[in-house]
Amino acid sequence: MNEVANRLSIIALGGVHEIGKNMYVIQYDDDIIVVDCGSKFPDESLLGIDLIVPDITYLLENQNRVRGLVVTHGHEDHIGGIPYIIKQLNMPIYATRLTLGLIKIKLKEHGLLGTTTLHQIDSDTRLRLGSVSISFFSTNHSIPDCLGIAFHTPQGTVVHTGDFKFDLTPVNNQFADIHKMAEIGMNGVLALLSESTNAERPGFTPSERLVGGHIHEAFTNADGKIFITTFASNVHRLQQIIDAATAVNRKIVLLGRSMVNVADVASSLGYLNIPSNMLLDVAEAGNYRRDELVILCTGSQGEPMAALGRIAGGNHRQIEVNPGDTVIFASSPIPGNERNVARIVDNLFAKKAKVIYGPGSATGMHVSGHASQEELKLMLTLMKPQYFIPIHGEYRMLHQHRLLAEAVGVKASNIFIVNNGDVVDIVGSEAIQERKVPNGNTFVDGLGIGDVGNVVLRDRKVLSADGILIIVLTLGKSDNKIVSGPDIISRGFVFVKESEGLLEEVHRITLKEVEQLQQEYAKMNNSWSIYKQTIKDSVGKFLYAKTKRRPMILPIIIQV
Amino acid sequence: MNEVANRLSIIALGGVHEIGKNMYVIQYDDDIIVVDCGSKFPDESLLGIDLIVPDITYLLENQNRVRGLVVTHGHEDHIGGIPYIIKQLNMPIYATRLTLGLIKIKLKEHGLLGTTTLHQIDSDTRLRLGSVSISFFSTNHSIPDCLGIAFHTPQGTVVHTGDFKFDLTPVNNQFADIHKMAEIGMNGVLALLSESTNAERPGFTPSERLVGGHIHEAFTNADGKIFITTFASNVHRLQQIIDAATAVNRKIVLLGRSMVNVADVASSLGYLNIPSNMLLDVAEAGNYRRDELVILCTGSQGEPMAALGRIAGGNHRQIEVNPGDTVIFASSPIPGNERNVARIVDNLFAKKAKVIYGPGSATGMHVSGHASQEELKLMLTLMKPQYFIPIHGEYRMLHQHRLLAEAVGVKASNIFIVNNGDVVDIVGSEAIQERKVPNGNTFVDGLGIGDVGNVVLRDRKVLSADGILIIVLTLGKSDNKIVSGPDIISRGFVFVKESEGLLEEVHRITLKEVEQLQQEYAKMNNSWSIYKQTIKDSVGKFLYAKTKRRPMILPIIIQV
Repeated sequence: MNEVANRLSIIALGGVHEIGKNMYVIQYDDDIIVVDCGSKFPDESLLGIDLIVPDITYLLENQNRVRGLVVTHGHEDHIGGIPYIIKQLNMPIYATRLTLGLIKIKLKEHGLLGTTTLHQIDSDTRLRLGSVSISFFSTNHSIPDCLGIAFHTPQGTVVHTGDFKFDLTPVNNQFADIHKMAEIGMNGVLALLSESTNAERPGFTPSERLVGGHIHEAFTNADGKIFITTFASNVHRLQQIIDAATAVNRKIVLLGRSMVNVADVASSLGYLNIPSNMLLDVAEAGNYRRDELVILCTGSQGEPMAALGRIAGGNHRQIEVNPGDTVIFASSPIPGNERNVARIVDNLFAKKAKVIYGPGSATGMHVSGHASQEELKLMLTLMKPQYFIPIHGEYRMLHQHRLLAEAVGVKASNIFIVNNGDVVDIVGSEAIQERKVPNGNTFVDGLGIGDVGNVVLRDRKVLSADGILIIVLTLGKSDNKIVSGPDIISRGFVFVKESEGLLEEVHRITLKEVEQLQQEYAKMNNSWSIYKQTIKDSVGKFLYAKTKRRPMILPIIIQV
Repeated sequence: MNEVANRLSIIALGGVHEIGKNMYVIQYDDDIIVVDCGSKFPDESLLGIDLIVPDITYLLENQNRVRGLVVTHGHEDHIGGIPYIIKQLNMPIYATRLTLGLIKIKLKEHGLLGTTTLHQIDSDTRLRLGSVSISFFSTNHSIPDCLGIAFHTPQGTVVHTGDFKFDLTPVNNQFADIHKMAEIGMNGVLALLSESTNAERPGFTPSERLVGGHIHEAFTNADGKIFITTFASNVHRLQQIIDAATAVNRKIVLLGRSMVNVADVASSLGYLNIPSNMLLDVAEAGNYRRDELVILCTGSQGEPMAALGRIAGGNHRQIEVNPGDTVIFASSPIPGNERNVARIVDNLFAKKAKVIYGPGSATGMHVSGHASQEELKLMLTLMKPQYFIPIHGEYRMLHQHRLLAEAVGVKASNIFIVNNGDVVDIVGSEAIQERKVPNGNTFVDGLGIGDVGNVVLRDRKVLSADGILIIVLTLGKSDNKIVSGPDIISRGFVFVKESEGLLEEVHRITLKEVEQLQQEYAKMNNSWSIYKQTIKDSVGKFLYAKTKRRPMILPIIIQV
């Protein structure tokens, strides 16, 4: 690695070829700046895993060069990894007020408050980290206080958009710094990293205000209680819900841990305005008529244990759905969550509720927080980058974003679709992608970070599909004769009563193999593994022929 | 159960509150007629289960009354259970020509051809099974040769729609018997069972012909090879693809077992017209230019092991995707399958293919085979039933269908939303729903039918989440002293190297508990289970505190 020639490098450690666990590195010379530190939820193939965070081997190997972590906004896929990463690598964190508030909740939950320095910034801040000067611009997104970042290096400016859309009529008049973006573009952008979540969607994402109108209309038409669910972090949405409740003279009950947490932080920091007499504790709800209440709750993705899931299932201790109540999903199901949402709608219909559900495009109760194709083209046009790296998306989104960049005039050879770990080095004014740094998924399972890997997961997969069959055999030390067993124990394989004949046969096969082996190997010595493998093979073959199943077979041999 | 009073009964054994494993029973007096015998795929919570079929305890208990199985059409959720059910209960099967052809493939695969009698029927057939006379009407759906059924009993007529839509411009001019439906309605319908799959969708489902136009257009614009995937059973879609290929002078290669099977049966029975020189074996494809080929393949739902999945992953031995080739998904991803489809699109883009993907409403490459709200209302209007039982759908679909029925004039009190196992008895002319018969899911796992139940699944769940920890201990028969062990073996729990300290501690805890127990129980006798439970509890508590994980803990005690 020629450190002198490669002064400016851009690296993705998480967030490309995937949605989630965003982490990018801008390195100039000896100064490493990290952008975002997200987490991602495992898919169902990662059995037992709770969370995935980026592998930061590269940062650990270059610890003394890391100048800090700059965070674009407070969503889980941008801050969720912080408590796990900060335990391994302590670095100062730079973020806006609301983002910092949400980070503090996480650090507190992990007992990490005070272990690292937190710096509050805003879109007017100018930072210098090592030899890099950093400026910011405000963007619109489904959470307030979002930043795009410009890294001014001696070699040129690198822009990271963060997550964004262009909402020209934003709630609370939190406008994006479109003039600042234009100015950055006018001054020359060497490389642009822009998010690709909605790169497959034609058109222009509608304004958040549109949702407010539909919520108000639905509130006006409702008779009984109103339940409404959305992502807790969508503070503008919460504001519009509170405004609509105020307009129709209903009190608000907040339900669900993240809803209470976010509303608390956002209102104490001034991002959310809740009139003082509006908020009720759930215990007080009983004192009000049904048509005086709005219950704003978690569970918009059908999570069975979230507030709405429990209410729909009749498992909430304090509040219930009555016939004629209205339930509004101010959300779209994320692909993969449709079945869970559907289960909850089923339960709500069974309780004779009116339910407004389905994709936001149909109900009007949700708009995306991400730029659609015309907005992505607008960002590319404003920034006029020499090099373009689409980030934040699965491959087909990055691919579509590339096509958009070509359409607005970025040279095809100047567009880099990178994998996690790929390095784009800018040497002189030429960008090359040749190097790779360590990267990957670090699995969080319970309290363990990184102690579950592919072998463990492969075992869980086998166990989950067909269970386990354990064969315990005690042999005499001196003569290798069977002292006890074989005892056969199974879990997760078949009903015991159904398997009697089968297990008898396993018993017989094991005995036969052991007899044979005893003749071949008078003493156990080094033949343990041969005994085990022989039993495993014979029993495995027999069970597959009889049942077409492949349980894990675990022979245990004890010498006494 | 008063058999005399309850002469006519309608029972769902599968298909309500779910999509899949359809099975309904029409019983008049001592004559039981079964409608459909479907299967359903397990969701990811049913670890290791391959297939679900209906629990037919009720039919087995009334074996001598079962007169036959009438099948509406050849989709898996209507015929997929037949090989499993017919092993338990042999009954004559009545179905149309194509449906019978597909059933025969299944029976052959299971070595069951010839074990039951198969009767070919068509929409003009009149059957008499016991005291019930049966007539049929043709419907439109995403497979040819579909029937609706009218059961004419002495008490009145019960109509079962099967799956349907109203396609007024059907492919191959296979019109629905709309006049016959009107006639049945005119003569009076006591009870209607109508399918609810699309009861949530407003409007009228577009004609299948629409898709043909879009396919033709895409074929005209394509340069390289064309890959196109759809459900194999959608014979009308296959016909339109073949017609489009013929029009643009391309040969057809069929890939994937079900595609080859269905095309074979459908063309030999005259439902599919493939010009004799059109079909190529995949081995011959190499002799043709890329723009002379259409590859019609399985994998429309993103199944990784289906033909398209293997081609996209570069794992197909005989054919590959080249840059510039076109891949068309003539399908919509079924909820739950989006991620798998997305993986394949990612792979195809990486191979620089052009890909037409996404919901059929956006691409025009797919239309549903099920009636939308206006068509459901049309069926209700034609049939004018006294009683209405929405079937074939999850609860919210049944609920929406109920609202549609009310909207066209069915009395709310005459609409029954039933669960699987619920019986609607019609006593005189009054319908009541009070009784329940046994019902449920029978799990197929490998060769086993019904030998995996909740205990086994619960074990698999625990094993899949956190693995297993086995503690083997050998005690002397006479004195209860430890002869060997405790040996500790884990699978699917944590990396061995990470867990050393942990397992040492487990060893220590086990020894301590055993010492304590030895003092309390001088001889093992009846204390086995106490030993095991004590070790399990102590070790479990320790591991949870240390790791927040709950592996299955299995103490094995051997006496020698």
